[in-house]
Amino acid sequence: MTVRIAVAGASGYAGGEALRLLLGHPRAQIGALTADSNAGRALGTLQPHLPPLADRILEPTTAQALRGHDVVLLALPHGHSAAVAGQLGPDVLVVDMGADFRLADAADWERFYGSPHAGTWPYGLPELPGARTALQGASRIAVPGCYPTAVSLALFPAYAARAVEPEAVVSAASGTSGAGRAPKAHLLGSEVMGSMSAYGVGGGHRHTPEMVQNLSAVAGRPVTVSFTPTLAPMARGILATCSARATPGVTAAEVRTAYEKAYAQEPFVHLLPPGQWPATAQVHGSNTAQIQVAYDEAAHRVIAVCAIDNLTKGTAGGAIQSMNIALGLPEATGLSTIGVAP
Amino acid sequence: MTVRIAVAGASGYAGGEALRLLLGHPRAQIGALTADSNAGRALGTLQPHLPPLADRILEPTTAQALRGHDVVLLALPHGHSAAVAGQLGPDVLVVDMGADFRLADAADWERFYGSPHAGTWPYGLPELPGARTALQGASRIAVPGCYPTAVSLALFPAYAARAVEPEAVVSAASGTSGAGRAPKAHLLGSEVMGSMSAYGVGGGHRHTPEMVQNLSAVAGRPVTVSFTPTLAPMARGILATCSARATPGVTAAEVRTAYEKAYAQEPFVHLLPPGQWPATAQVHGSNTAQIQVAYDEAAHRVIAVCAIDNLTKGTAGGAIQSMNIALGLPEATGLSTIGVAP
Amino acid sequence: MTVRIAVAGASGYAGGEALRLLLGHPRAQIGALTADSNAGRALGTLQPHLPPLADRILEPTTAQALRGHDVVLLALPHGHSAAVAGQLGPDVLVVDMGADFRLADAADWERFYGSPHAGTWPYGLPELPGARTALQGASRIAVPGCYPTAVSLALFPAYAARAVEPEAVVSAASGTSGAGRAPKAHLLGSEVMGSMSAYGVGGGHRHTPEMVQNLSAVAGRPVTVSFTPTLAPMARGILATCSARATPGVTAAEVRTAYEKAYAQEPFVHLLPPGQWPATAQVHGSNTAQIQVAYDEAAHRVIAVCAIDNLTKGTAGGAIQSMNIALGLPEATGLSTIGVAP
Amino acid sequence: MTVRIAVAGASGYAGGEALRLLLGHPRAQIGALTADSNAGRALGTLQPHLPPLADRILEPTTAQALRGHDVVLLALPHGHSAAVAGQLGPDVLVVDMGADFRLADAADWERFYGSPHAGTWPYGLPELPGARTALQGASRIAVPGCYPTAVSLALFPAYAARAVEPEAVVSAASGTSGAGRAPKAHLLGSEVMGSMSAYGVGGGHRHTPEMVQNLSAVAGRPVTVSFTPTLAPMARGILATCSARATPGVTAAEVRTAYEKAYAQEPFVHLLPPGQWPATAQVHGSNTAQIQVAYDEAAHRVIAVCAIDNLTKGTAGGAIQSMNIALGLPEATGLSTIGVAP
Repeated sequence: MTVRIAVAGASGYAGGEALRLLLGHPRAQIGALTADSNAGRALGTLQPHLPPLADRILEPTTAQALRGHDVVLLALPHGHSAAVAGQLGPDVLVVDMGADFRLADAADWERFYGSPHAGTWPYGLPELPGARTALQGASRIAVPGCYPTAVSLALFPAYAARAVEPEAVVSAASGTSGAGRAPKAHLLGSEVMGSMSAYGVGGGHRHTPEMVQNLSAVAGRPVTVSFTPTLAPMARGILATCSARATPGVTAAEVRTAYEKAYAQEPFVHLLPPGQWPATAQVHGSNTAQIQVAYDEAAHRVIAVCAIDNLTKGTAGGAIQSMNIALGLPEATGLSTIGVAP
Repeated sequence: MTVRIAVAGASGYAGGEALRLLLGHPRAQIGALTADSNAGRALGTLQPHLPPLADRILEPTTAQALRGHDVVLLALPHGHSAAVAGQLGPDVLVVDMGADFRLADAADWERFYGSPHAGTWPYGLPELPGARTALQGASRIAVPGCYPTAVSLALFPAYAARAVEPEAVVSAASGTSGAGRAPKAHLLGSEVMGSMSAYGVGGGHRHTPEMVQNLSAVAGRPVTVSFTPTLAPMARGILATCSARATPGVTAAEVRTAYEKAYAQEPFVHLLPPGQWPATAQVHGSNTAQIQVAYDEAAHRVIAVCAIDNLTKGTAGGAIQSMNIALGLPEATGLSTIGVAP
Repeated sequence: MTVRIAVAGASGYAGGEALRLLLGHPRAQIGALTADSNAGRALGTLQPHLPPLADRILEPTTAQALRGHDVVLLALPHGHSAAVAGQLGPDVLVVDMGADFRLADAADWERFYGSPHAGTWPYGLPELPGARTALQGASRIAVPGCYPTAVSLALFPAYAARAVEPEAVVSAASGTSGAGRAPKAHLLGSEVMGSMSAYGVGGGHRHTPEMVQNLSAVAGRPVTVSFTPTLAPMARGILATCSARATPGVTAAEVRTAYEKAYAQEPFVHLLPPGQWPATAQVHGSNTAQIQVAYDEAAHRVIAVCAIDNLTKGTAGGAIQSMNIALGLPEATGLSTIGVAP
Repeated sequence: MTVRIAVAGASGYAGGEALRLLLGHPRAQIGALTADSNAGRALGTLQPHLPPLADRILEPTTAQALRGHDVVLLALPHGHSAAVAGQLGPDVLVVDMGADFRLADAADWERFYGSPHAGTWPYGLPELPGARTALQGASRIAVPGCYPTAVSLALFPAYAARAVEPEAVVSAASGTSGAGRAPKAHLLGSEVMGSMSAYGVGGGHRHTPEMVQNLSAVAGRPVTVSFTPTLAPMARGILATCSARATPGVTAAEVRTAYEKAYAQEPFVHLLPPGQWPATAQVHGSNTAQIQVAYDEAAHRVIAVCAIDNLTKGTAGGAIQSMNIALGLPEATGLSTIGVAP
């Protein structure tokens, strides 16, 4: 079976990462590549790390360009996916790497994104309870945000095991590629090298309601997430430090067992052995989430740390993993657990 | 008045930073410079950023070498300060940048450092309530750890105002210089560049009891701190994200007011205007702590973020600030609030 | 004597560095601060590393705003200085950190900059033969480009001593701040971190004729410079590797002596002892140029390496050094040889 | 055909990169993994980016451990390969990633490495004239040094076309992984981040005679190379800037044609279109060499710039490429041209 795949938004970081992975996917045939302001340019001038596609010319993002494929991957700015997807029939698998269809609660969407809610699609984080089943045969997939991917993987086993209380605290450092490729002064190399900085403190980050949604569903009751994102001097990677008060009586061994059980069969989650700690460099370019968990007896808290590559497991790798499930392919097709380190 | 100052441990990062600052201190006369394995070498081969001292030869760290100064700054590995200080009379001001005399609780010391407790000296964080008075005329000063400096500054106004509950959660990213200059594989540039990693998760970091000690004293009741340090791909800087559940009924305005009041007169704490967030690059080489605070209504938490230069305000700058107080000099002598950015 | 100084272009990197240094200059009183698109904003939101100036509001860059100062520092895009300077009288010292008045050859200017030549001002590299005299009492100063500063300091002693032949080869790596603060996609942190890249290869870089001009003047005959700039993953610093074929018969000792003689009295050039090599981190934030020279017997070439901070010695520090000379102040006033390392 | 491969020195960077690539090589079966001081440890604690091998235990490097494989990859410190290889029969393909068998001239070896010359093996840079033929069916391969790989690829077409004169000048920046994984103070993250530094200036670097050997062979006459290596603040990558005086009468078009002809059929050399310049980030983790060439008419020089990943094309990727040739496999088996960017 050959799967013909178009990528809308091929000149950005998410689109480029999708193409990098698709070039190694044995079933994928890369079809139309589209862009907005970069339409008409050769991909080699924009994504020079992809020599096999260097001569491909970017087309404008139109329904016409995207039709005739089995799969359309959308790497568009928030708010643009609904219009494009609406012009593609139900026989096309549309995988949206943007935020538009991630949230079930329309009020949450409107509060955090300031526009009307477009709807809710099956959620592309296969490791969450029930998610794989919902993805099988789906024709629409909402790929999770990069932070919610790391945070949900770090904390859901604790919630599933009822090992922690419903107030989660998260601090996560992201590489700059998570902010995209549009030139902005605060993202210049001169500004970010040598600097850790905070932003969106106090609950305002748009990925917050997505974390709340995922963890509340697993916990079976409302969970709050106090989320502080920080910007780290690296191009790729997220390191999420997540904690919650331990349920009275829970033991360190029970917590460890909950994580071992949750991830024993997962191909893309690597629960590290005791004594090893996640590092983003170790998952650079890979679809692996490295996780470690600890129990702080003095503070009565469970602390889980997760490292992912924000562009791979956090965006395009997660998209392809979910695409594989939807298409009935082996889930790991074209995806690697191996990082490029050092 | 000229103050004759010796630096023990002049070949490491803390010692080098102390010398960098003392070279700009109008009262300081730099006396003996000592080292251990590097004794006999010219400082210019070890600290080439300090051309005025390039030809100075390092002596072995002995009481004989250190005697005859007004001030002795100790930048020694933990556990070595007591022996040296014991050979210096009470007329010499000894400022210890190591951990030996920071903790009041001997049991805490023994649990975290595994050796007998050497004692407790006046604590060199002048911004803490009562600290300045204790430092005036002191002949011994324990300089705080770099993480406790950032965390205590971030959270103590909230505890002083009874705006938060006693379970604090802290995630702090540090540059690699905080781990010192001894060559270790996990601190190689190849390992740390492009990588955020966790370590000491679960309450095991030695700076934890120091944070607990400081915040409990301010709060007037036992405070717990769940502390997760991370290593960031930068040489200098700490960004500490600190939070605690808000006391029921507290308002965002009350929290802001508490911080404004705490820091209105502080020369080295810069409470940022609303909308601006701390960044370590902005305090690179400066003695400033940048602080911002937010109230997350959905999660009912107060979040305070603090950026410092771990070697300046976090170590040698803090040491000199306290030294100035002890000597009766203007507190800001030889210290700058200005960072080297970008 | 108090010197009242205005800075035009205070929101960029060169302007910010000038302000950082002027805040430590004992004679400087900082007057008007102007900008273009950032006029009306508080400096604290643009240069948060300068807390003492945080509340200063940027004015539009007009002659009216700049009048009434003893010195006007221009940190404007190329081509904008002449119009501003023309409105300032000869009693005002105008120091141009842009390129407009650096080149003596109008044809060179027009070929590399594509606009009419504005003129030639005394050249602000005091270490060059004859330059100090020309700067004394000057009312106009052209500050050298950052690359020509490093390259001229690296090579002029060899040319002055007739130790090398007239075809120089230069490869120099610059930090990203040299490219300014205007947001451009190729300067994003995501693009530059982890990457060394070439640009302007083949003689096209605008700083080439300035190097040719400086070295030819010293050599007393036409020198060619094959200059290749590269962009390095750091915010600040230039490391220039410069070489030329040795004059037949010259010895390594003669070369070393030439450099020792050239720099024996220079406060801001640190000729390293044999065996030590320049590193940009060692001059971070300082006005020092670190230089080392070697003679490769097998290849018959003299190789000189120079490290500077492109914003300090390479721009704003060099500007203030020249300003001090023009005003009759001690040359090193307000300037430091000490770097912020590590 | 399954090829059973042992890796000696599996805990270092070269060994780790070899394993990363072999995990994706469809014919490779990874056999014994050996180490010296790390023998007895699980690979997962040393190379956590390779989850499929996490539980493999490192054996001591002995002939016994290495026997019984089709291929043995040596990633040992210089000087250790001969003893190991001498115990392996001619039916085993031994691929040495160290320096021991690269140089044909025993005097060169002894001068630069200070030990007796072990011999000369077929040289594993298939792109060099005649190299592929020599590798076919070879049972011993000397993998080139990382710098000579980049420099030889950058310059040999110009020498093959007699477009340049025999005095080459090279400045090359390397990421820190090229210096290996043994902890040394000058390789600490604190030292290298934010810093470009020179080392081995003046012809002393051990890779110099290898460049001379390669280029002289192509030129058919003695070539000198003035080589200056620099250390860049990145973990991976080499950017080599190489130039030589143009042969009188040669044109820019002729130079371009020479490169196009040399690389038209090469799978792992990407001669960039005019106007694009090499960047190490674009070849991160890939076996591609990006090359661009320019002719500077004013300086009469040909400048060629080459970017490679020092661990991939510069070490382990080059090793596997040559191994494939020796074994009669398609040359690109298990190797990718695609970089991990941004």
